Amino acid sequence: MIIRSHQHWFARLFTWHGSVLPQIIVRLLLNLGMSLFALTISPWLKQLNSHLTLPPFSLLGIAVAIFLGFRNNASYSRYIEARKIWGSVMITSRSLIRQTLCAVDATQSAKLAANYLIAFAWSLNHSLRGTPAKHDLQRLLGEKEAESLSSHHALANGLLVKIGLFYANLLREGRISELNYRNIDDNLNELSRCLGGCERIANTPVPFAYSLILQRTLYLFCTLLPLALVVDLQWFTPFVSVFISYTFLSWEAVAEEMEHPFGESANNLALNAICTGIERNLLEMTDQAPLPPLLSVDRHYNLT
Amino acid sequence: MIIRSHQHWFARLFTWHGSVLPQIIVRLLLNLGMSLFALTISPWLKQLNSHLTLPPFSLLGIAVAIFLGFRNNASYSRYIEARKIWGSVMITSRSLIRQTLCAVDATQSAKLAANYLIAFAWSLNHSLRGTPAKHDLQRLLGEKEAESLSSHHALANGLLVKIGLFYANLLREGRISELNYRNIDDNLNELSRCLGGCERIANTPVPFAYSLILQRTLYLFCTLLPLALVVDLQWFTPFVSVFISYTFLSWEAVAEEMEHPFGESANNLALNAICTGIERNLLEMTDQAPLPPLLSVDRHYNLT
Amino acid sequence: MIIRSHQHWFARLFTWHGSVLPQIIVRLLLNLGMSLFALTISPWLKQLNSHLTLPPFSLLGIAVAIFLGFRNNASYSRYIEARKIWGSVMITSRSLIRQTLCAVDATQSAKLAANYLIAFAWSLNHSLRGTPAKHDLQRLLGEKEAESLSSHHALANGLLVKIGLFYANLLREGRISELNYRNIDDNLNELSRCLGGCERIANTPVPFAYSLILQRTLYLFCTLLPLALVVDLQWFTPFVSVFISYTFLSWEAVAEEMEHPFGESANNLALNAICTGIERNLLEMTDQAPLPPLLSVDRHYNLT
Amino acid sequence: MIIRSHQHWFARLFTWHGSVLPQIIVRLLLNLGMSLFALTISPWLKQLNSHLTLPPFSLLGIAVAIFLGFRNNASYSRYIEARKIWGSVMITSRSLIRQTLCAVDATQSAKLAANYLIAFAWSLNHSLRGTPAKHDLQRLLGEKEAESLSSHHALANGLLVKIGLFYANLLREGRISELNYRNIDDNLNELSRCLGGCERIANTPVPFAYSLILQRTLYLFCTLLPLALVVDLQWFTPFVSVFISYTFLSWEAVAEEMEHPFGESANNLALNAICTGIERNLLEMTDQAPLPPLLSVDRHYNLT
Amino acid sequence: MIIRSHQHWFARLFTWHGSVLPQIIVRLLLNLGMSLFALTISPWLKQLNSHLTLPPFSLLGIAVAIFLGFRNNASYSRYIEARKIWGSVMITSRSLIRQTLCAVDATQSAKLAANYLIAFAWSLNHSLRGTPAKHDLQRLLGEKEAESLSSHHALANGLLVKIGLFYANLLREGRISELNYRNIDDNLNELSRCLGGCERIANTPVPFAYSLILQRTLYLFCTLLPLALVVDLQWFTPFVSVFISYTFLSWEAVAEEMEHPFGESANNLALNAICTGIERNLLEMTDQAPLPPLLSVDRHYNLT
Repeated sequence: MIIRSHQHWFARLFTWHGSVLPQIIVRLLLNLGMSLFALTISPWLKQLNSHLTLPPFSLLGIAVAIFLGFRNNASYSRYIEARKIWGSVMITSRSLIRQTLCAVDATQSAKLAANYLIAFAWSLNHSLRGTPAKHDLQRLLGEKEAESLSSHHALANGLLVKIGLFYANLLREGRISELNYRNIDDNLNELSRCLGGCERIANTPVPFAYSLILQRTLYLFCTLLPLALVVDLQWFTPFVSVFISYTFLSWEAVAEEMEHPFGESANNLALNAICTGIERNLLEMTDQAPLPPLLSVDRHYNLT
Repeated sequence: MIIRSHQHWFARLFTWHGSVLPQIIVRLLLNLGMSLFALTISPWLKQLNSHLTLPPFSLLGIAVAIFLGFRNNASYSRYIEARKIWGSVMITSRSLIRQTLCAVDATQSAKLAANYLIAFAWSLNHSLRGTPAKHDLQRLLGEKEAESLSSHHALANGLLVKIGLFYANLLREGRISELNYRNIDDNLNELSRCLGGCERIANTPVPFAYSLILQRTLYLFCTLLPLALVVDLQWFTPFVSVFISYTFLSWEAVAEEMEHPFGESANNLALNAICTGIERNLLEMTDQAPLPPLLSVDRHYNLT
Repeated sequence: MIIRSHQHWFARLFTWHGSVLPQIIVRLLLNLGMSLFALTISPWLKQLNSHLTLPPFSLLGIAVAIFLGFRNNASYSRYIEARKIWGSVMITSRSLIRQTLCAVDATQSAKLAANYLIAFAWSLNHSLRGTPAKHDLQRLLGEKEAESLSSHHALANGLLVKIGLFYANLLREGRISELNYRNIDDNLNELSRCLGGCERIANTPVPFAYSLILQRTLYLFCTLLPLALVVDLQWFTPFVSVFISYTFLSWEAVAEEMEHPFGESANNLALNAICTGIERNLLEMTDQAPLPPLLSVDRHYNLT
Repeated sequence: MIIRSHQHWFARLFTWHGSVLPQIIVRLLLNLGMSLFALTISPWLKQLNSHLTLPPFSLLGIAVAIFLGFRNNASYSRYIEARKIWGSVMITSRSLIRQTLCAVDATQSAKLAANYLIAFAWSLNHSLRGTPAKHDLQRLLGEKEAESLSSHHALANGLLVKIGLFYANLLREGRISELNYRNIDDNLNELSRCLGGCERIANTPVPFAYSLILQRTLYLFCTLLPLALVVDLQWFTPFVSVFISYTFLSWEAVAEEMEHPFGESANNLALNAICTGIERNLLEMTDQAPLPPLLSVDRHYNLT
Repeated sequence: MIIRSHQHWFARLFTWHGSVLPQIIVRLLLNLGMSLFALTISPWLKQLNSHLTLPPFSLLGIAVAIFLGFRNNASYSRYIEARKIWGSVMITSRSLIRQTLCAVDATQSAKLAANYLIAFAWSLNHSLRGTPAKHDLQRLLGEKEAESLSSHHALANGLLVKIGLFYANLLREGRISELNYRNIDDNLNELSRCLGGCERIANTPVPFAYSLILQRTLYLFCTLLPLALVVDLQWFTPFVSVFISYTFLSWEAVAEEMEHPFGESANNLALNAICTGIERNLLEMTDQAPLPPLLSVDRHYNLT
């Protein structure tokens, strides 16, 4: 993703990967067809006394742009919030391991805690994307523990309880002090907040009426636009109409994509890369090897 | 709700459920009537030297769109804040049960705490929606306790005091430590904040003048629009006028709906589903069975 | 306030109460007069080669709408922040009483604390509105204590110190533990933040230049508008001009009102109702009777 | 400042004080000159086949208004954040004194702490405005201590360390408990945040390119505007052109002023008044007399 | 940077340094070429019945301005957040040293802690900018420790663990109390948040589709603009077209630059200056000398 931002400004214009063009190409072609249709009936339209003019469409277009700006804000806020939550999963996991390393002499406990926290991150990832978590659980916690966790309806939450009990045990055995435990409990609460925040974003879309109204208005606007443009522009109509439609439709499409930031499309969060980052950090902090390799972008320059 | 977002983009346009069309259909028909009226008097309007033109209406329309954008922001913020507060009720309840499980050996206490917290969520839900909480209280806390709570003017707050006293008792009996109690008290404060936040949103609408001014302006704008359009558009007038009115009126209607996020309409929060989610999570954490079934969307694709 | 939002959409349009119409009626009449004047000199204007046209006014109108949107945001943020602070006064007072009830056996202390906290809320209300707090202090704390407090320049802050000393005393007498005291002290800090936040909003208006520039521009814009409209619209001028002016002026007026959220006008916060709510809640929590009646809207549907 | 907001709406329009008119009067006169020049060459312009028309300027004007709105938001956020930080200095100082009064029996310590905190507020004020702090330090802490502090590069930070050592001393002497100390330390951290926040706002302006691009565009826009207006408006050109320029330039000027909220101009924060308020509050809380008089607005209605 | 803001308003217009002009000069020249081409084919365009007119471009231009406003907001938020995080690094480092000075008698520990914290700031800086940290580590922590740290994949995080272990050691040796340690641990968590926040901003650009769509639309808009302007403006076309393009392109360029706030260009954060500030503050607090000199702007008035 970062690689692309260093492309030359001219080369970027012709990038296909990661753009939303594939999603809206059908709608643009429909618009092109409508433009050609408008051109065809243009002489007949002129004979009518009544014809569509651009001014009411300008008014509508500006109103739609304002509403689209609003929807973009709403979608982008979800994307940013989701990213901040995952940033907090990484931050809090590292803080917990730092606290564990400082509190307990034996690094064995820290290693175990690290594995639990890595498993928490991967479970959250899998539950948000609807992919099976079993493989990662087995890899990190062993066959038996993975089995016992598999019956949970709320896997990530179950893991959080396990982590809590793990630290409560250290406290009971006197290996961490009461105050250390309090510090750790604060961070577990933070992980709980991250989990709840992700669930909230995943379960509560932007109110359906919002996207519906906008899409209806937008598609109708794009469909009628050629009729209003054709009187003045004539043969320029298809070009200008598709250009204006592209501007509006692609913004709507990217808003739609960012509304669900946990998907696997090009403009979603790279959860796998983040989880791998967490794994690498926690393993290095607890002197475990080998580190999993950094994820690199695929041939479409996407991280997942 | 989520199901619908995977509908094909074309199919979505003709969705009726969850949209605000039923609420504004009368106003759109009025606008249609006005358009036809404008068409009828159009020849007579032309004879007059003075006639309405579109430019002042464009100016007004853009101003109204900007103000509408502001109102949408205000309403949407209320909706999002309400959703975050309910997310926090879930997060904090789970954290409290995790802390209880870690602090106390006997799971009996955790089960009792879970029931109290589930009752808190349902009471808050019922008090926000003005529905009777008695049935849920009896189900969760037993006949006797439900009776003793029924006299409270502020039921959810009363339950919070009860939960506080429950933990204070555990502290006095020496079953949780001072520091555990402090951690728990922090989370009770958070529940108190959630309760107060919900009350604030429910009791304090967006200042009345805001919606009033906007609606007055908007309705008058839509009513006069056909008169301004008819000179140029002639027979296209009804169509374009209803289209523009639909855009503005539906955005106003969805803003109006989201302003009161605790209602039961299609664009409000699915409080029952959230409460059921809390109940399922807390019961599973404390090994209680059976779990209540997940709520599923009704035949209008709505969750309540 | 909530009642009105359930009015039929048509009935709402003719509501007088709570709207800002009375404040701007003079300005609207001036605009009407200007329109009639423009109509009168319209023939003479036509003879001049130079005349005002609408396009520069459209540009100006849109710019003014954007700036007005900015000012609305600023004013609304103040209103919302003020409401949140008062919500926090209620939340924190309730949390403090819950903590007191859980920490101390004798409810006598909780009753005393409740009275202090109610007195704090009323003093803050009175100091923000510039009304005398003496009556409420006497009612809640007794003649003698009210007298001793009356000399304070910063009454609410003085009460906060008293509440702090009250809890410090409980700590010294060994009736609450160190950790309880810490929990309570956190909430006293929160009340201190509420107090400071209210003072900040009351003392620091939106920079004066903002409202001044906007008003100058807006009034001049409305005054010149008829001259620009009259060429095309002729006899429609007064109507359209007053309509556009109403839209802009009423939004400016409501922004002006919300800028000072602690006043007693229709679009300000209902501080008395909030304080009564706090009083009812705290009294019920500490089993004191009778509860003061809920405030109801006056015949203009306003709460104060 | 508050006084002015109660001026009659008509009287306000002719207020000179506190407005930004003096700063932009030269630019407005330049614009007037350009308008007269455009009028002069207007006949010659008409003979040319090519002439400036308003539509491209409308597009540009609206774009500039949108960008100006953005810059206003950025500047206003800085102003509001600066005000909140200073509000927090007051809140935190009062909380610290309340905690000290509750924790320590002898009020002598509280008096000393109050003086330190007042000195901290004044030092921060002086360092932000680049004025010498020596006089206030001598007044509050005595000749000797002021001398020892004068060598500090970071005076306010040095005072914060001194306050920390003062409380650490009370702890070592056993006069405040560990938990009291923790509560106090939290508030010292908050003062540290206030200090850092002020430094950040003072040292990091809005990126230079922002204001530069906006100003270049804006001045060029205002300069060319008369040429575009003159074709239609003729003799109305100077008036309309200066009016539009006033709207844009004054908004830009007020944004420029608010960008540096710690200055002493009319639209900046009244730091001296805030510091005096802190001094009055803390002295009253610790029974010290006499209180310094409240600052009142000068003959230009400004507080500094 | 601050120096420039005191330049005379007229002189600023011709400033070259720190502006984004160099980056867009090629695109502006292309636009100029297109304008001249449009002028050349202008007579031939007139003969065609179909020609480009300005109104559809006005609509597009306003929509693009609204979307550009959105992108500016997104980029500016990143810039501001990055600045706040670095402010917090400074604030937290100072608080930690204050706490260390208050908790430990021997200043030797505080000196060591200061060096660690300065090294943390510089490592974070170097890792964000991709420059080698080795020199600074050697300077601050000595040859040996720098060597042992050099193998870390996550250097700043490794330093944070070291700082944590340093304080844990002080606790074990009984030189700081449990509560002191808790206060310190809170601040270490805050540093961990700063580290994670910087990584998040550096690794997650604004979704690629956003900038791509905007740039495509914008460049195409600027390219076609001369064709739409030439009919009316004739010889004014190149001037007006370049002017409008400059406005849009320069705003896009500054948004692009601010999106990556950790770079070394003129509109990025002056990380070296901030780190030097931290170093000066911490050294002065722990009585170490000599202080490194304040960074001053280079001959292009830039800080790095």
